[in-house]
Amino acid sequence: MSNELLHFEDFAVGRKFFGGPYRVTRDEVFEFAREFDPQPHHLDEEAAKQSMLGGLSASGWQVSAIAMRLFAEAVILKTANLGGPGCDDGRWMKPVRPDDVLMLEAEVLSARQSGSRPEIGFVKFVWRLCNQREQVAEFVVTTMPARRGP
Amino acid sequence: MSNELLHFEDFAVGRKFFGGPYRVTRDEVFEFAREFDPQPHHLDEEAAKQSMLGGLSASGWQVSAIAMRLFAEAVILKTANLGGPGCDDGRWMKPVRPDDVLMLEAEVLSARQSGSRPEIGFVKFVWRLCNQREQVAEFVVTTMPARRGP
Repeated sequence: MSNELLHFEDFAVGRKFFGGPYRVTRDEVFEFAREFDPQPHHLDEEAAKQSMLGGLSASGWQVSAIAMRLFAEAVILKTANLGGPGCDDGRWMKPVRPDDVLMLEAEVLSARQSGSRPEIGFVKFVWRLCNQREQVAEFVVTTMPARRGP
Repeated sequence: MSNELLHFEDFAVGRKFFGGPYRVTRDEVFEFAREFDPQPHHLDEEAAKQSMLGGLSASGWQVSAIAMRLFAEAVILKTANLGGPGCDDGRWMKPVRPDDVLMLEAEVLSARQSGSRPEIGFVKFVWRLCNQREQVAEFVVTTMPARRGP
């Protein structure tokens, strides 16, 4: 892979990357909910007003997917990345509403070389997703960037 | 909420629920990837063949969203549920391919009453998602069902 791409060695602990803005639309909240999370508070304005969240909100899994998109644009599409084995500690902290404008901060939490596969490493990021006012979600996600070489 | 719905008291540790089948289509793999996870191995057959996964595969976030849909049908839409604060320990273990048929097993891992809000509880599930041959993903997800009463 091209050496112009980011590699394992570029992800020092504490390094931050930034993604967004991304404006959430009412239509995409409905569309995602119909396909993947058909709970009334994601699908129906009136039911949502009666719910604990007090109004229409996006599925948490849509929020995760939007964060992935912003992370792809900010990091993954610029990286010699071979995959992503998992995520930990996902927290949906505040409701995400139509017309919210989301921004992502992704910070390197840890980086280690693979024991069994010397050509790759594992880099753990924390994603902090914010709207105009406050943080709305947090996820810890592992990536597998290629090493630059021995 | 109706007492015919499942409540906190119905989620004994070890109880299992089953969802699916859900057939993954090539078109939806491309569509989700274009919107949320535009990496070549989710978007382009030829690039995917060269990738570590050896062929086209669905975004892990699409796999999570499909698991949510199956969990909604099997549990959440039958439950007096007030929300979902987060997920832990998400593992994408095997690639999910077009035409895979997915099934979900959701097992109650733990259940506890809320300390601050006596009308609700927290129930933690492990989701095990399988295709025709093997387990492909696992997630630990917390729900907030209402209690039946004092």
